[in-house]
Amino acid sequence: MAEKIHRVVYEPDGRTLFVPDGQTILEAARGAGIHINSPCGGTGTCAGCRVVIPEDPPPPTETCLRELTGEEIRRNVRLACQTRVHKDLRVVIPEESRLGDQMILTEGVEGAVALEPNVRKTTIPLPAPSVSDQRADADRLLDGLAEQGLADLRIDVKVIRELPERLRALDFRPAVVVIGRDVISVERPGTSDACHGIAFDIGTTTLVGYLMDLGSGKVVAVASRANPQAAYGDDVVARIEYCGRTEDGARRLHDLVVGALNEIVSEACRKAAVKPSAVYEATVVGNTTMNHLLLRLPVAPIARAPFVAASASAHSVSARDLGLRIHPRGRVYTAPLVASFVGADTVGVILATGMHTSDRLRLAIDIGTNGEIVLGTRERLLACSTAAGPAFEGARIRYGMRAATGAIDHVDLVDGRLVLHTIDEAPAIGLCGTGLIDAVAALLEAGVVDPSGRMRASGDAGALAPSLARRIVGADGETGFVLADKDETRSGHPILLTQRDIREVQLAKGAMAAGIAVLLDEYGARAAALEEVLLAGAFGNFIRPERALAIGLIPPVPLGEVRFVGNAAGSGARMLLVNRNLRRIADDVARGVEHVELSLRPDFQARFAEAMFFPAAGR
Amino acid sequence: MAEKIHRVVYEPDGRTLFVPDGQTILEAARGAGIHINSPCGGTGTCAGCRVVIPEDPPPPTETCLRELTGEEIRRNVRLACQTRVHKDLRVVIPEESRLGDQMILTEGVEGAVALEPNVRKTTIPLPAPSVSDQRADADRLLDGLAEQGLADLRIDVKVIRELPERLRALDFRPAVVVIGRDVISVERPGTSDACHGIAFDIGTTTLVGYLMDLGSGKVVAVASRANPQAAYGDDVVARIEYCGRTEDGARRLHDLVVGALNEIVSEACRKAAVKPSAVYEATVVGNTTMNHLLLRLPVAPIARAPFVAASASAHSVSARDLGLRIHPRGRVYTAPLVASFVGADTVGVILATGMHTSDRLRLAIDIGTNGEIVLGTRERLLACSTAAGPAFEGARIRYGMRAATGAIDHVDLVDGRLVLHTIDEAPAIGLCGTGLIDAVAALLEAGVVDPSGRMRASGDAGALAPSLARRIVGADGETGFVLADKDETRSGHPILLTQRDIREVQLAKGAMAAGIAVLLDEYGARAAALEEVLLAGAFGNFIRPERALAIGLIPPVPLGEVRFVGNAAGSGARMLLVNRNLRRIADDVARGVEHVELSLRPDFQARFAEAMFFPAAGR
Repeated sequence: MAEKIHRVVYEPDGRTLFVPDGQTILEAARGAGIHINSPCGGTGTCAGCRVVIPEDPPPPTETCLRELTGEEIRRNVRLACQTRVHKDLRVVIPEESRLGDQMILTEGVEGAVALEPNVRKTTIPLPAPSVSDQRADADRLLDGLAEQGLADLRIDVKVIRELPERLRALDFRPAVVVIGRDVISVERPGTSDACHGIAFDIGTTTLVGYLMDLGSGKVVAVASRANPQAAYGDDVVARIEYCGRTEDGARRLHDLVVGALNEIVSEACRKAAVKPSAVYEATVVGNTTMNHLLLRLPVAPIARAPFVAASASAHSVSARDLGLRIHPRGRVYTAPLVASFVGADTVGVILATGMHTSDRLRLAIDIGTNGEIVLGTRERLLACSTAAGPAFEGARIRYGMRAATGAIDHVDLVDGRLVLHTIDEAPAIGLCGTGLIDAVAALLEAGVVDPSGRMRASGDAGALAPSLARRIVGADGETGFVLADKDETRSGHPILLTQRDIREVQLAKGAMAAGIAVLLDEYGARAAALEEVLLAGAFGNFIRPERALAIGLIPPVPLGEVRFVGNAAGSGARMLLVNRNLRRIADDVARGVEHVELSLRPDFQARFAEAMFFPAAGR
Repeated sequence: MAEKIHRVVYEPDGRTLFVPDGQTILEAARGAGIHINSPCGGTGTCAGCRVVIPEDPPPPTETCLRELTGEEIRRNVRLACQTRVHKDLRVVIPEESRLGDQMILTEGVEGAVALEPNVRKTTIPLPAPSVSDQRADADRLLDGLAEQGLADLRIDVKVIRELPERLRALDFRPAVVVIGRDVISVERPGTSDACHGIAFDIGTTTLVGYLMDLGSGKVVAVASRANPQAAYGDDVVARIEYCGRTEDGARRLHDLVVGALNEIVSEACRKAAVKPSAVYEATVVGNTTMNHLLLRLPVAPIARAPFVAASASAHSVSARDLGLRIHPRGRVYTAPLVASFVGADTVGVILATGMHTSDRLRLAIDIGTNGEIVLGTRERLLACSTAAGPAFEGARIRYGMRAATGAIDHVDLVDGRLVLHTIDEAPAIGLCGTGLIDAVAALLEAGVVDPSGRMRASGDAGALAPSLARRIVGADGETGFVLADKDETRSGHPILLTQRDIREVQLAKGAMAAGIAVLLDEYGARAAALEEVLLAGAFGNFIRPERALAIGLIPPVPLGEVRFVGNAAGSGARMLLVNRNLRRIADDVARGVEHVELSLRPDFQARFAEAMFFPAAGR
């Protein structure tokens, strides 16, 4: 059951996306940061996402027929949220379906948020002082800001120290940068258009930064790095232990992550031709340990019963205090946490998927080194965290790697023949998370791996097609499957998936599946009651829902109810960057979610053992 | 007309005060920090200040007869605000007239303010974390504070960094210090009673600090220093010029004043046996230049037309940032300013005298190196500043000194004979401000100095009593008057008042009198319309109103309408320390006062020249 990928061209920008079969035009656009108006969140009720498909449009769905006029249908208008891609298409987004400059939005997974960033930059012409207007410089500036609707602001003494000289050098026509209620910078105007922020998703294994233009709400560059803390431990518990046994260990881990974030800032700024000093605010989502190491909060109590964090609240701290090299008086907002092992990344997933506002019973799975799982509706949300391990981010997998150029990101079995796809179609270097899921699913489907996770030995390959059988080899005392022959790889050596790799996947998916089972129990629902399953993760490419089902990463639900939502935690960070009001909602979400502590559940281990099996192939 | 001083013993504390003849029991008590209930502000309308005078009480005033019962009068009850001291007295303050612990107050000049300090210290017993209560440490603490009515607080990340270890060491029963909305310290309980603040009056010439127990609202120690910045200029303009021509000059002046404030903190803490780390907040009043040098704000534009300050707002800054050695996370609140030459000291005077709430037309004169003058009612307040010079603080006067041990603070002419009083009755060292005013008044009265300010030459002393005539001597080419003979002084040399000293007094009082005249003009009132004249200044001892009238420091009004209110600016700083709500009122006052720029008034110089004359003696 190879999945087809279609080419969709979005006009008027002419951007080409490769869209998995069956995804909607709106979903695909969102995933790529193409902004289509969707106030209802893509539920087919507002008709805001009208698009035109000039050539050979798909037949209108029932919702399209209800929401659009006959004349519109005749002119090949369709709703982007209702129209699924089953072939190559050209889609024209008309003016009225684009998001205007006044409220260009960044996409959440589940809809758009208004552009109301916490950072505002504006040029204020002030009257020069005179004997009849002797107002102090700072008060004059605050009055000027209040006249432009920015009332009730403050200026720190440190800013005022430079203010008199600055104002006079600028002839009292400064560009002013405000973060929250604080005036943080007074600059030469003309730079007033350059107002940027960066949204970070700080994962245990992978760091991603989205540089955003806060004037437009658009992502202007993305950069990522492996989390260099990984050298001191694969997972959060190992890192906490490292801090416990090493003097200055926590300081070192802090410095490492900040160093990598600074590289991300540099790279993203270089790509977008933005000065780091024009980046005024960073937002951060990350698990509790990542959050605490970044903020230099003590981590020891996180890992020790009763597992208590130092602070679960949101914080806004000085970028300089953390060592982050954006504007020196810039701020870093860290989103609130739920519990010691359910962090701000989960809050980001909830915000991005809108689970806190939805009546539909949904399950969201954020696949990282920890697997965070959220279940519920706006009435009640449960969350837990499982130690899935970093397998899906490439660690502990023999040829594992991050989603980067040369990573095998898709593996298909077409007519018994293996078809690989690599990122940027470069010679293969290794296997990223989506490739790993695909490969395991393909080997299960082909019978190379059985539901217990055992890989056929090379002597036992007789039942397989010869093209597959020849790929089973012995490797360093264990069995392996040659995914890429030596002529397909950059190194000239074959790339294998080994028996041990399969076991890592089993551990990871078993932990997640067991966590899901416990949450469903606690909620009092059965998997069949799920109205939607959302797969999230910083994979850099699409997880294909049917593959996640095939390996049992998610409970058996109909395929149409499974949706891959990309890096939803990162989407949450972006939404928090462009909309300050969402921060209060984040506080409410973080406080409202019920945390289920799996380690306290006597049934967890048994369920874990059960869940390590793969579903029987062909189910 | 020598003034008599009476001994008044206040029971039950047994404190003895030396009270100038005619002062009320309430005024004298306020001046010494003895708290008598006076919600009406001492206007005789609330009968709250009932006291008992067991032995030979003064006859009841009309107001006493109206407000008290016949039985009370018979039991020797009197109203403290209505009963003037004309002889030695013993006064018993009954329980109901004392201010209870719930709302112990500090005295403003004009009344009491409730004890609602910005700093709060409280011990919070918290539930220890458990698997069924996994709240993060910081959130647990905030929840506990909210339960005690301290809601909506914040904890800075820097405090949280130490919190987990601290809470566990204290078995989750910490004493918590809150400043404004910020938790700044988590400490061992048992120290929870020790919660102090310090109120500073930062004058151009004199620095005063009042260490206060914020649990009781009482001043527990006072310390003062000469402002060491004076080495770089007598007045603010000279210091601003110094900063302009010297690299790091502003930094040096900052360091000097902070060094002296730290000495004041040390001395006051030593006197009261308080640890500096238990002093959590400082409040500061001072003129605009003193404020800016303390905050390290640029001062150059203050002295350059159009005379604009960097900031006139109140600020709350980190004590550590300023280098003030109180609690390292303590805060320094600087009161708001009116204009470049009318500072927070003036705001303090207004708050302390209640001019912003009064319907009576009053004039307040704050005598310092700058003379600040306020005129008006709650409907309209005008203020100006005059460059009076530091004569009344001892500078530019040959034998001038601060009010300290050995300073001649009172000079009387009794039957043609000079009677001196020195502080602590020590051998005379020099002459402080009140002594200077007294001495000039005495010499005017005796005819030694004529209304033009000319001192009789020794050859021209024939008309004087021989006991005075012999005191006129030549001194370094000018005429001088021997105030203290060599056997009365510590040095063994006589202490003189010279012709030049008289000229300094004329300049100072002339500047103030001219400022008063301009304000009255601007207000459209004549001196006769004044209902009260308030004399303020950090004199350390009483100015006697009749002497201020005698030298023409204040306009000719009936003696009963002149009142010395002590260091009203310092009172304002104390009130701001013990009552956080007053800070908003201070903002309103600072914004509401109309500043009159004397340098822009064409009539000022002529009035100044006029006002340098002394009133004719015996008027």
